[in-house]
Amino acid sequence: MSDTPVRPVSRRGLLTGGALAAGGALAGAGAARATAADDRRPGEPEPAAGIGRAVEPFHGPRQAGVTTEPQAHAAFVAFTLAPGTDRAALGRLLRLLSDDAARLTRGRPALADTEPELGLLPARLTVTFGFGPGLYAAAGLDERRPPSVADLPAFRVDRLQPAWSGGDLLLQICADDPLTVAHAQRVLVKDSRPFATVRWVQRGFRRAAGAEPGRTQRNLFGQLDGTANPTPGAGLDAAVWVPDGPAWLRDSTTLVVRRISMNLETWDLLGRTDRELAVGRRLDTGAPLTGSAEHDEPDFAATGPDGLTVIPDFSHLTRAHVTDDRQKILRRPYNYDGAPTADGHADSGLIFASYQADVARQFVPIQRRLAERDLLNEWTTPIGSAVFAIPPGCTEGGWVGQQLID
Amino acid sequence: MSDTPVRPVSRRGLLTGGALAAGGALAGAGAARATAADDRRPGEPEPAAGIGRAVEPFHGPRQAGVTTEPQAHAAFVAFTLAPGTDRAALGRLLRLLSDDAARLTRGRPALADTEPELGLLPARLTVTFGFGPGLYAAAGLDERRPPSVADLPAFRVDRLQPAWSGGDLLLQICADDPLTVAHAQRVLVKDSRPFATVRWVQRGFRRAAGAEPGRTQRNLFGQLDGTANPTPGAGLDAAVWVPDGPAWLRDSTTLVVRRISMNLETWDLLGRTDRELAVGRRLDTGAPLTGSAEHDEPDFAATGPDGLTVIPDFSHLTRAHVTDDRQKILRRPYNYDGAPTADGHADSGLIFASYQADVARQFVPIQRRLAERDLLNEWTTPIGSAVFAIPPGCTEGGWVGQQLID
Ligand code: HEM
Ligand code: HEM
Repeated sequence: MSDTPVRPVSRRGLLTGGALAAGGALAGAGAARATAADDRRPGEPEPAAGIGRAVEPFHGPRQAGVTTEPQAHAAFVAFTLAPGTDRAALGRLLRLLSDDAARLTRGRPALADTEPELGLLPARLTVTFGFGPGLYAAAGLDERRPPSVADLPAFRVDRLQPAWSGGDLLLQICADDPLTVAHAQRVLVKDSRPFATVRWVQRGFRRAAGAEPGRTQRNLFGQLDGTANPTPGAGLDAAVWVPDGPAWLRDSTTLVVRRISMNLETWDLLGRTDRELAVGRRLDTGAPLTGSAEHDEPDFAATGPDGLTVIPDFSHLTRAHVTDDRQKILRRPYNYDGAPTADGHADSGLIFASYQADVARQFVPIQRRLAERDLLNEWTTPIGSAVFAIPPGCTEGGWVGQQLID
Repeated sequence: MSDTPVRPVSRRGLLTGGALAAGGALAGAGAARATAADDRRPGEPEPAAGIGRAVEPFHGPRQAGVTTEPQAHAAFVAFTLAPGTDRAALGRLLRLLSDDAARLTRGRPALADTEPELGLLPARLTVTFGFGPGLYAAAGLDERRPPSVADLPAFRVDRLQPAWSGGDLLLQICADDPLTVAHAQRVLVKDSRPFATVRWVQRGFRRAAGAEPGRTQRNLFGQLDGTANPTPGAGLDAAVWVPDGPAWLRDSTTLVVRRISMNLETWDLLGRTDRELAVGRRLDTGAPLTGSAEHDEPDFAATGPDGLTVIPDFSHLTRAHVTDDRQKILRRPYNYDGAPTADGHADSGLIFASYQADVARQFVPIQRRLAERDLLNEWTTPIGSAVFAIPPGCTEGGWVGQQLID
């Protein structure tokens, strides 16, 4: 750490663009997962190779944190741009935040990092930038906004609270270590203060890294959550990434973040069979009610002795299911769990986060079918909602949003 | 999971004491760290041995979660006993919660577990029971209350909020997996509802398991926090455990939980040298200012060219330092990090938790010296405070508090 910059000496240079060459001079992160820079002093013990030093590359044609194997911890931080933040100021903000992200994700402190020792364990840190409708408006670039990056249509199940909704800029900060997330959030929030206020922050978690390797995560209803996600390959690419168009659109995607409260009080009164019927899958194995293993194909036509379909027509599975890759969404949710009330009632739910090339084509029809009729609605309530464009990634020395704004 | 009990069939029996034999029939947890029961169906893939299945034994003469190597995640849950909760009711409550804890800590769902699948990964779960002054009063056992298990004397630095203070019963729930903590909290809170209301919950974190093995954790000031803790052996035993006395006292200890906000805004304005002088240790290595490695003995008498002591007399280190093992405390703190304000000001701090045989003999003198004069006070503010007796542990089939209450 002896050479860690602790005073914001080069910050001014960075804001005017002059310091990026220095940033670029750091060793480039490899294309594949690498390990963080080793800042030990001579004689310090070698740290065990572990989850702390694993690196997800920040640079690339597409942003990290989308198809990245989900990390254990996440902070979704939404900002409201300050009145004076115009196109030029946005450029400075995004340059600064991109530089922070490029450093922190490889285990280097940020330039003006006042807690540089907290910047040394990347733990697969990713920082994913999302642009809300207000950002395009502030930049005077409304014509470049993907039309469905806007408030979602109202759904009858919605009980949206402004405190969890909207946002001009989003930073999705994920890592396998909670201290790494907290520190990255601190740095990024601090550096955005001249340009924006914090609108909302949602912290979420999944299973700890290494706790249950290779298994689908569970949500707080105890369900395996993520089974039917598109799997890496052509199908995933078709679902998530915009394949062509101008530079600010190609290799972009969109993110829908919905805070959905899950009523554990009423859910827990339900018998196991009813719970399984509500979703159409078994609680223990996650198998569809017509199969025996998690990844068996559900048979929506199969009927039981009573003549009814084995998987209820109004089950979450039936209503959410799509077969065309271009209509699928990539769900990347996190659990939240606030403090219970004095009565001991839980404040639990899902930070539902889905990535898709086009919100209108993919997310909205599914959400519409679910809102119309989904047994699960009885126990779940959307209380927050926001939509962001996820612009393409950037190369070493570049910054996220450059294709759009520069 | 096929044999998982999902209906609260044996719950009534448990409340009347009859089902404990069944609980006792489960395989005993070994004395050393073991791995959780394996509930896989035939043919299911074998989970990688990892942090998820690691077990900390619940049973033993002393409670777990005290000298246990700190897990990554913690929930401190304080309860207020309901008016009707007398000695007999307390016995039922503690029997029930002990049974839950005994099962969950070995990777078995609780008896009435409505999310049994969330109970299968112990991830070193510990559930540590603490008794506040109100519990002794409710049980009519005031004469058995260790005199210093009471509100702490007022310190001039205190800005205590009732929302984070006091409590009749505490459950300190720790595990290396955040979902495991959330589930255990849910089960334990639910089972305590007939007897108590939730007074406050504090969630905290340290480095993820495996992120930085063998290293002292850092707090959100970036400091290595925990360096000078008593190390396992005779010194630790003398500091923490009550060596003799009646059965409800021997092998007990006490816990002080202080919520201490850390003002990152003003701290971050400070230069590195000033920060290091405030504590008396270096930020990077954690070495005392008179040494070069973390565990070097500080030399409080050494002076610099200016004739002043190298470690300032009002440094946190100098003021907190004690040499007699019987006056030391075992600090086991967790970081907290709430949502920042709209202005981007952090809500960060420490859930300071210390274990000591006697609060009056050990904690109070240190806290008094710190409150009088400690450079660190400029940036830290205690906003919550609570004291609990940590009764001895229990054996298989027994329950925590039995020696006191039965
Ligand atoms: C708290 C709210 C929700 C819960 C608890 C929940 C739970 C689940 C569960 C347990 C599954 C089956 C396992 C899996 O494939 O992951 C599932 C599948 C799915 N859910 Fe949800 N879900 C929620 C909200 C939503 C929302 C808001 C959407 C989109 C609008 C959505 C879309 C889907 C899709 C597309 C599938 C896969 C269906 C298939 O093709 O098999 N879910 N969900
Ligand atoms: C947010 C508040 C606090 C912070 C940030 C903090 C930080 C630190 C740091 C960085 C050290 C040096 C490294 C180590 O030995 O762990 C330390 C040592 C210590 N602290 Fe604190 N501390 C806080 C509150 C307290 C409180 C409330 C107490 C007890 C009343 C306390 C008691 C001690 C003791 C006994 C030591 C070891 C001193 C020695 O013998 O070397 N601290 N603390």
